Amino acid sequence: MTSDEARVRALDLLNTAGFAFLGTNGPDGVPWIKAMFKMENEGLERVFFSTNMSSKRVAMIADDGRASVYVAETGSFRGLLLLGTAEVQADRDARERIWREGFERYYPLGINDPDYSVIVFNAQRANYYEMLANVTFNIP
Amino acid sequence: MTSDEARVRALDLLNTAGFAFLGTNGPDGVPWIKAMFKMENEGLERVFFSTNMSSKRVAMIADDGRASVYVAETGSFRGLLLLGTAEVQADRDARERIWREGFERYYPLGINDPDYSVIVFNAQRANYYEMLANVTFNIP
Repeated sequence: MTSDEARVRALDLLNTAGFAFLGTNGPDGVPWIKAMFKMENEGLERVFFSTNMSSKRVAMIADDGRASVYVAETGSFRGLLLLGTAEVQADRDARERIWREGFERYYPLGINDPDYSVIVFNAQRANYYEMLANVTFNIP
Repeated sequence: MTSDEARVRALDLLNTAGFAFLGTNGPDGVPWIKAMFKMENEGLERVFFSTNMSSKRVAMIADDGRASVYVAETGSFRGLLLLGTAEVQADRDARERIWREGFERYYPLGINDPDYSVIVFNAQRANYYEMLANVTFNIP
């Protein structure tokens, strides 16, 4: 598999993923993993999640922004690991972009609820595998 | 949910998981995540995976043993994160324990194939969540 083919296959996998696994550096340098709804993505460059400002992950990202996003189809032995950094955004643009109908259930104060925030993951490198093919490439 | 209830629910989730996500510390301190077949587990204390001696993960674990194992049922909002350390074992006992019929396909030299090895994950702490309940506890 060429690097160009891997980019196409990787993007297809990320675009169709309903959730993704976010990796962050925990307090003792132990990697934490959490399944999160993948709200949006911009190509392979950026992935957006919603989160609670009070969550463990927001504190971890504030301490250490190094992070990863992983999506996999375990049945067909396909997986994409994006390596990069994560940041927490709570400005109006980020809130509006990710807000969905029904979020009032989690954030009763609405789009300006102080506990509502957005995690933006920025990818720098990628590793895509499918069966025995395994390709690493830079982003973009 | 009490801590005792969380232990029971967590063990049920781990016992029935066909695969798990292994978190390791990558070269630049970026967390790596990989879906792996969960070969066996001893309670919540230990989880066993098979791997290639030449894999990226073996090199990472040799450099930094801090690791995590995550299993999730995304449909029912259940997840278990085990935090601890991982080690690579290649002795006869470990090889025999994890060897399965059909492994010859991946390791043509059989159980003594120098590329065949076992990752043993040792858990120290756990975080179990189910819907809005979220419980952290020590292991054992």
